[in-house]
Amino acid sequence: MIPPWSDLIKNALAEDIGRGDLTTNALVDAGLRAHAILVAKEELVVCGLPVVAEVFRQVDSRIRIMPVLQEGSGAQPGNTICNIEGPARGILTGERVALNFFQNLSGVATTSRRFVELLEGTNARIVDTRKTTPGMRLLQKYAVRVGGAYNHRMGLDDGVLIKDNHIALAGGVTEAIRRMRDAVSHLHRIEVECSTLDEVQDALDAGADVILLDNMNVETLRTAVGLAGNRVLLEASGNMTMETVRQVAETGVHMISVGFLTHSAGSRDVSLRISFEK
Amino acid sequence: MIPPWSDLIKNALAEDIGRGDLTTNALVDAGLRAHAILVAKEELVVCGLPVVAEVFRQVDSRIRIMPVLQEGSGAQPGNTICNIEGPARGILTGERVALNFFQNLSGVATTSRRFVELLEGTNARIVDTRKTTPGMRLLQKYAVRVGGAYNHRMGLDDGVLIKDNHIALAGGVTEAIRRMRDAVSHLHRIEVECSTLDEVQDALDAGADVILLDNMNVETLRTAVGLAGNRVLLEASGNMTMETVRQVAETGVHMISVGFLTHSAGSRDVSLRISFEK
Amino acid sequence: MIPPWSDLIKNALAEDIGRGDLTTNALVDAGLRAHAILVAKEELVVCGLPVVAEVFRQVDSRIRIMPVLQEGSGAQPGNTICNIEGPARGILTGERVALNFFQNLSGVATTSRRFVELLEGTNARIVDTRKTTPGMRLLQKYAVRVGGAYNHRMGLDDGVLIKDNHIALAGGVTEAIRRMRDAVSHLHRIEVECSTLDEVQDALDAGADVILLDNMNVETLRTAVGLAGNRVLLEASGNMTMETVRQVAETGVHMISVGFLTHSAGSRDVSLRISFEK
Amino acid sequence: MIPPWSDLIKNALAEDIGRGDLTTNALVDAGLRAHAILVAKEELVVCGLPVVAEVFRQVDSRIRIMPVLQEGSGAQPGNTICNIEGPARGILTGERVALNFFQNLSGVATTSRRFVELLEGTNARIVDTRKTTPGMRLLQKYAVRVGGAYNHRMGLDDGVLIKDNHIALAGGVTEAIRRMRDAVSHLHRIEVECSTLDEVQDALDAGADVILLDNMNVETLRTAVGLAGNRVLLEASGNMTMETVRQVAETGVHMISVGFLTHSAGSRDVSLRISFEK
Amino acid sequence: MIPPWSDLIKNALAEDIGRGDLTTNALVDAGLRAHAILVAKEELVVCGLPVVAEVFRQVDSRIRIMPVLQEGSGAQPGNTICNIEGPARGILTGERVALNFFQNLSGVATTSRRFVELLEGTNARIVDTRKTTPGMRLLQKYAVRVGGAYNHRMGLDDGVLIKDNHIALAGGVTEAIRRMRDAVSHLHRIEVECSTLDEVQDALDAGADVILLDNMNVETLRTAVGLAGNRVLLEASGNMTMETVRQVAETGVHMISVGFLTHSAGSRDVSLRISFEK
Amino acid sequence: MIPPWSDLIKNALAEDIGRGDLTTNALVDAGLRAHAILVAKEELVVCGLPVVAEVFRQVDSRIRIMPVLQEGSGAQPGNTICNIEGPARGILTGERVALNFFQNLSGVATTSRRFVELLEGTNARIVDTRKTTPGMRLLQKYAVRVGGAYNHRMGLDDGVLIKDNHIALAGGVTEAIRRMRDAVSHLHRIEVECSTLDEVQDALDAGADVILLDNMNVETLRTAVGLAGNRVLLEASGNMTMETVRQVAETGVHMISVGFLTHSAGSRDVSLRISFEK
Repeated sequence: MIPPWSDLIKNALAEDIGRGDLTTNALVDAGLRAHAILVAKEELVVCGLPVVAEVFRQVDSRIRIMPVLQEGSGAQPGNTICNIEGPARGILTGERVALNFFQNLSGVATTSRRFVELLEGTNARIVDTRKTTPGMRLLQKYAVRVGGAYNHRMGLDDGVLIKDNHIALAGGVTEAIRRMRDAVSHLHRIEVECSTLDEVQDALDAGADVILLDNMNVETLRTAVGLAGNRVLLEASGNMTMETVRQVAETGVHMISVGFLTHSAGSRDVSLRISFEK
Repeated sequence: MIPPWSDLIKNALAEDIGRGDLTTNALVDAGLRAHAILVAKEELVVCGLPVVAEVFRQVDSRIRIMPVLQEGSGAQPGNTICNIEGPARGILTGERVALNFFQNLSGVATTSRRFVELLEGTNARIVDTRKTTPGMRLLQKYAVRVGGAYNHRMGLDDGVLIKDNHIALAGGVTEAIRRMRDAVSHLHRIEVECSTLDEVQDALDAGADVILLDNMNVETLRTAVGLAGNRVLLEASGNMTMETVRQVAETGVHMISVGFLTHSAGSRDVSLRISFEK
Repeated sequence: MIPPWSDLIKNALAEDIGRGDLTTNALVDAGLRAHAILVAKEELVVCGLPVVAEVFRQVDSRIRIMPVLQEGSGAQPGNTICNIEGPARGILTGERVALNFFQNLSGVATTSRRFVELLEGTNARIVDTRKTTPGMRLLQKYAVRVGGAYNHRMGLDDGVLIKDNHIALAGGVTEAIRRMRDAVSHLHRIEVECSTLDEVQDALDAGADVILLDNMNVETLRTAVGLAGNRVLLEASGNMTMETVRQVAETGVHMISVGFLTHSAGSRDVSLRISFEK
Repeated sequence: MIPPWSDLIKNALAEDIGRGDLTTNALVDAGLRAHAILVAKEELVVCGLPVVAEVFRQVDSRIRIMPVLQEGSGAQPGNTICNIEGPARGILTGERVALNFFQNLSGVATTSRRFVELLEGTNARIVDTRKTTPGMRLLQKYAVRVGGAYNHRMGLDDGVLIKDNHIALAGGVTEAIRRMRDAVSHLHRIEVECSTLDEVQDALDAGADVILLDNMNVETLRTAVGLAGNRVLLEASGNMTMETVRQVAETGVHMISVGFLTHSAGSRDVSLRISFEK
Repeated sequence: MIPPWSDLIKNALAEDIGRGDLTTNALVDAGLRAHAILVAKEELVVCGLPVVAEVFRQVDSRIRIMPVLQEGSGAQPGNTICNIEGPARGILTGERVALNFFQNLSGVATTSRRFVELLEGTNARIVDTRKTTPGMRLLQKYAVRVGGAYNHRMGLDDGVLIKDNHIALAGGVTEAIRRMRDAVSHLHRIEVECSTLDEVQDALDAGADVILLDNMNVETLRTAVGLAGNRVLLEASGNMTMETVRQVAETGVHMISVGFLTHSAGSRDVSLRISFEK
Repeated sequence: MIPPWSDLIKNALAEDIGRGDLTTNALVDAGLRAHAILVAKEELVVCGLPVVAEVFRQVDSRIRIMPVLQEGSGAQPGNTICNIEGPARGILTGERVALNFFQNLSGVATTSRRFVELLEGTNARIVDTRKTTPGMRLLQKYAVRVGGAYNHRMGLDDGVLIKDNHIALAGGVTEAIRRMRDAVSHLHRIEVECSTLDEVQDALDAGADVILLDNMNVETLRTAVGLAGNRVLLEASGNMTMETVRQVAETGVHMISVGFLTHSAGSRDVSLRISFEK
């Protein structure tokens, strides 16, 4: 099935290849075949194999990818992640774009995995945000799942999140929720952002399905959990770090959203080693 | 003039807005106008104002951006970067995409600036690589320049870089350079990647215009600089960090390429504060 | 704000105009201006004015639309719906596409309104389905809302509806719901399709948020309503007609989905009357 | 050969699938294969098999369609129209779009066939109009042919039809025809719309190739046929119904154009029955 | 009205500008304004002013074009064709693409005009062919009309031309024409290609509307004209040159088609002279 | 590998085929297979075989091309250039577009070859310009190489050429070169246009890498060559013809750029001869 991120890859290839790979086209025989391995250069969670496959398929449909490690598994420095075989020109020309995707996605997956591990034994889930690199939303949210965390809404059309501005403009949280119920399908839950305990009480009274607890300290979070008493889902949010996240989870919130997963995870280092047929 | 990254912004907006902003469309009056300020939440180099302007222009052409700080200037936490005015719906709907671009680009510019400052007083330039986030190449390379560093080639069609594989397949560096001269316009210089001093000598003999010194230690770099004696441009490359870069510069190389600038700079934190007309 | 259906209109214009309007280009002076009125030729709910405006804007941005009746209001035969002014060529060239959109959408809105009126005094809502004309999904669902009915999910990514095949393949409804909860954001409710009362009981036990009662007779629907007792939302579905829909509503279900609204509403008749400046 | 309506199908799939089929992707194993049959649920003229095949090919190129009934043949309720085999995910994900196309097109073909049958034994042809659903022009006109009727022009660039406004602006029918002859290729015939017998006489005198007799009653049509005496082709037009069309044909006109074929035919009911491999 | 060749210009600009005009962006101040004149460097028929205007509009919508000579008029070496005013960067960046279009189109128009003038006093028309430069069809056919000649069909969907292969495969010219009448709208005339007088007689008997006389000498053409006796339109075709075309016209054929107009007209020389504001 | 000119071919096919090949679709059986040969009708350099293959592949992926003559070889009138086999409809429908590309490209290659041959024994190279037919840049520059000549820059982003206007606006050639060095990657050489010997001296002093000698007579060129003494590359430019080009080469310049190669080469005549299977 053609992946919905197929055009993103097409654009990334166009961006890098432009009018053609000057060096490879001039120096590498069109008939030559090559074999390559993708090798981890630091510890990482493998993420992006289907993307690597699609990059090379678009460059030259004769290139084949054979995974050695599975998507989502851990790799140690020196581990071979996958084998790649096909025309040498295509492998050389597609290399950088394939690596750029894989390094970004395994960066997101590895960071997500670390956050998830910090919460072991609690009931809280790590969820992502809309703070993704422009164009990479679908893939970075996929990497979050590969890392073991969960997705928040995919975009502004994929979920209702009523923020303070919306509440003010709608004339209060009760009215805001009523208008949303009329505007969206019955398959949507309604989440309301609150920054004080009073607002949490109002949102509960107004029938919110989910409450986002914005920038509250651990004590306030614990009080909010007490107030809500499992009637709604609770999401904690606001500059979460590896240092603070466990404490937050232990307050009893159901979800903790972490922008860092996607906007600042950094890339994981891998390299492609190529050998050529005689 | 329509910027060449206009379609990238169109795609990023489609990615986030999809079938429409459920919450804003239901709760915010179409006629309401708003005023917003973009505020720095940490120290950063301002980068991305033309992109923010284009994001909001695409969302609603009536939205106007008025810069307070100039592109490339430094901002302290709490500084207002720009004012934004126009229809409230458009500002709310475009907010996240505008921030995602600005935070990524000011992250790249800020990191670039730091590397540049570390080289003050040397003759070496910081240059970027092709290790950019897929889709963001043009903008991230722009952010590198805003930060005071320099661009390497934009893509595989924008410069010749002959690597070890190419040399092997072409039958030696002399033959590789000869074939490249025939294949590309006379406006291109030819760069050859070398990882040993022997290779550097071969490349010099073969008439390379630029030599990439790959993963050499400082001593070897210094010897290479001696060998080349200003006949060619020399670029040092390989896992450069803020700790190592000055030492490398002092060897006398002309350029130091740093992948970290674009693949792992992380985003800088800013926020949008919105107020509404009565 | 550029509407998300802007490209649909671009394609519809390309489809009709192709290489150019042979007749108008040859016979109508480029400088001539015209005035036109859109007139109802049968009773209808006005729907599509923003689309008509966008059609003419794309044909010639100097054409202006001034509504006389409001979107969603009723029109009688002979009523003027809106005034149109601008270059004559553009009005003549865009006429058919504008009418094709308006007639289709006011057909959907008018049919929706009729179904809605049949339910007056009950607690049930009319909702649409995914049985729309290919390409027209967003606009036809908009017309459903203009007619006073409600939208079901916009597409396969906009809501979870677990059907019999899915349940069988997942190994039962409990397992299916558990896997869905892990796969989708916490903002999604989960709907399960049931065709027997036993299935309804299973879905209730498994924690479904919404149950689709498929092709049940009125008596069975009433029993299902009793079983569910307001713990979940209930949607009745299956060949609903104007004759049967009220009876179904009176069983106490919350929603009745009607494919006829979009796949067979038929178009409403309107015409454009044009006069030219001297 | 890639059909010219290939992009229409791509858009329709994007419209329905968006970011992915949430339910199927979570609950159906990627390796599972399925078999499906497309079954008629009411009497219909089979139309749309190549479109169904292209829909599934775009979703997953491994899905195969094997027709049981031929395009254009009649189906009775319960008849299997075609077999479909391939990966289960693709069949489930493409189902609704495939059905939406098939139901619309077999609706148009079935209605066209009925009109054609009403004219048996006369010399008149049923022709379609430009009153098609936006985006569906090419396919709905194809369905008209499958139903046994004929196509009028495909768009404003595919034929010359001079209407009253054009004649007035060109300064009379003679001048209008003269200017058209200069503007279009010699392969185009020129049709003139007339609503009175005087206008018919003028059009004949001016050398029209085809005359559209607009909204004339049966008696006037008969007089017009007498006037024209087979020198030109005559097309009758204006709110044709199944009740009136035979009478009109018997006046001796060559063509009767019927907007109802495409704008209000309604969809024909079919369903997809799926079984899965163990 | 957005011209149907708007995307062609977008592609031509992308092709020339790519990632940006390196030289102009670095050396010309963004705020500087310029004035330019388009000057003829040889005798030519002015053709392409609306295209030049659209090129500059796409580069920078603030650039204005003011024609001095009218489209279709003759220019002598040294004549100013139009004035151009606006931001200097845009004028410098768009210059080459604007010139490339104008030189090609005025080449076609000038050549067309010469052929037309050779036929003065005869009844024959010069018509073009489908032998156009790929992508330039619409514009080159427009240039043909500006030069005073006429258009043949715009593409394979814009007219019926039955060639020898088609006749053979259809089982004779009579059957071929019968099948075409059923397949296309009544607004199409049917043209048949003939290379002998016997074939001409067959085509006349079978009811062809137009006959293409392929590669016949002047005497045979004259006989064919005699045979046809104004019952059909006659088009002469086959390696027409300025030397032979008048003789052919004097045989009495109605049209002479000339591929040279579009495939080998060559470009006309013009230049852009730019001055800058202080 | 998908060629970067793939979309150009898609557009050219859409331009010619539009809504479908009326004649072929009606008269040629979908199952019929054909064999065709591409035959030279005048002397030419074979150029465009990969483009012909891609045209037919896009029309029907079952069509196969088997070259008889190699790309770049010479053909005499009557020579078969390649064999083509596959479904008859596709071959008939794609014929004109395939020929239009081939004739244009072999025109460019043939003209380039002639210029190259005129320089035999000299050290000068023929290079092309940006004076290409809009949309055809990549392919026409490829044809130039097939003909044995060399490419100048592919677009405004692919090389720096500082012209008189740029120098004036930058405040002199020294300052212009300095600013360019900062703006572009170290892989770019910098070319400066000069029209007098004084300007040549200035450009040499300022460190230009390449000097374009614009519209100089042979004597001045010879003086310029003397001045430069192999320190830089020298390109002669300005209305080069077959008559003048050898003399220019003998002055000792390294390159001679010839716009005529691409803007006025004219097409070479070839035809497709088709036979059909029984």
